[in-house]
Amino acid sequence: MNFLPKELLKIINFFEMLPGIGPKSARRLGFYLLRLPQTELIQASQAIASLKKTVLYCSICFNITDKDICVFCSNKSRDHSTIAVVEDVQNIEAFESGTQFNGVYHVLHGRLDPLNYIGPDELYIPQLFQRLTKNPKSYKEIIIATNPTTEGEATAMYLKNKLRESHIFDHIVLSRLAYGLPIGADLEFTDYMTLKHALDGRMKV
Amino acid sequence: MNFLPKELLKIINFFEMLPGIGPKSARRLGFYLLRLPQTELIQASQAIASLKKTVLYCSICFNITDKDICVFCSNKSRDHSTIAVVEDVQNIEAFESGTQFNGVYHVLHGRLDPLNYIGPDELYIPQLFQRLTKNPKSYKEIIIATNPTTEGEATAMYLKNKLRESHIFDHIVLSRLAYGLPIGADLEFTDYMTLKHALDGRMKV
Repeated sequence: MNFLPKELLKIINFFEMLPGIGPKSARRLGFYLLRLPQTELIQASQAIASLKKTVLYCSICFNITDKDICVFCSNKSRDHSTIAVVEDVQNIEAFESGTQFNGVYHVLHGRLDPLNYIGPDELYIPQLFQRLTKNPKSYKEIIIATNPTTEGEATAMYLKNKLRESHIFDHIVLSRLAYGLPIGADLEFTDYMTLKHALDGRMKV
Repeated sequence: MNFLPKELLKIINFFEMLPGIGPKSARRLGFYLLRLPQTELIQASQAIASLKKTVLYCSICFNITDKDICVFCSNKSRDHSTIAVVEDVQNIEAFESGTQFNGVYHVLHGRLDPLNYIGPDELYIPQLFQRLTKNPKSYKEIIIATNPTTEGEATAMYLKNKLRESHIFDHIVLSRLAYGLPIGADLEFTDYMTLKHALDGRMKV
C-alpha cells in the first residue's frame, strides 16, 4: 500500500492503532473519509484536537465533564449522601440507563491490578478518602460498584478494609451490587459461580 | 450518554457515522482517544483536516496520489500499453500485492448502477475514452477488471460494447479476468455459478 498518498496512510495508521480495528477495516475507513465532505472532516479534526483540552475531570467525583463540577455533583436534586464507586466513566452510563439510582458517583479510573503495577495510588482512591474525610457525617452509604472480576473484587475488598480501618466511617453503610442470575438467563447455561452466588443470595418470596 | 462532555460526544458521533462501527464501538473508541497523548491526537487531527487537500486524482488514470501524475503512470519501467480498468483504488492494491502485473491502471471510481442513478458519466468512463483516443495505436490490451458482481459485469459489458462500437480501438485486445475456483477452495462448498464458470473455462493440462 505504499503507493497511497501520505496523509491517507497517516489516517489509516491512526485507525489501525485503535482497539478493535484491524488493517482491513482501517483501510476501509481511510477510503471512506476521502469521500466525506470537507466540512465534516474539519469538524472531526477540531473535535479530536480539542478533546483533551475541553474534557476535565470533575473535582469532586472525577467523572469526565466540560465544567469544573459534573452534572451529577452539581445537581441539587440528587442524593449526595449515597456514593456509587465505579471503575470507569462508562459504568456511570450503565447506572444512568434506567436503574433510577439517584445518588452520586466516584470514578476510580481503573481497578487494582498488581501484575500491571496499578496500586491504590494509581487510582482515584486517595481522592475518595479526602472527599469522605471532609465531612464524614454527610454520607450514609457507599455502594462499591466495581466489576465482578478478580481485579474488581480485589479493589472492592481493599476499599472495604480501608474504610473500616479507621473508625470515622463506621456509620456509613458499605454495600456491593448483588450477584445472581441476569434477567433472561437460562439455568442450563449459567456458570456454577454465578449459580452459587444466586443460591447464597436467594431471597424469600 | 448526555452527561458526557460535548467534544467527546462529537467524536463518538463521528465514529458512529463510519461504516462498520456501531454505537458501542464508537463509544469505546471515544474513550480510548481520551487516553491517547495529545501529540498523537494533534497528528490525527491534522491528517484528517488536510486529507482532501493533499490527496489528488492522477490526471491520467485517476488513481489517488500526492502529485499530479501517480507512481504507476510516471513509472517508465511499466508497460503503458496495457491498462487494467478497475472499479476502485483498493483494487489496485490487490493487483500490486504479488500478481506481477506490470501494466498501468484506469480507476472508474465506481460501477454502473442504474438503480442508484450511477450512469457512465458519473464514473471516469469518458476520461478513459479521452485517454485512449489521444493515441489509440499506443495501446495493446485493456483488461476490464471490474468485480464479478452484477454491477461489475454490467460495467464490463458496457465498456466492451462501447469500445467495439467505433472501430478505432479494434486492434486493442479486450480481456476479462478468469472466473473459477479460488486457490484453497473445496468443491463441496463451492457455489454452482463459480463451478459452472470453472467448468466452462477448463484448461488442458
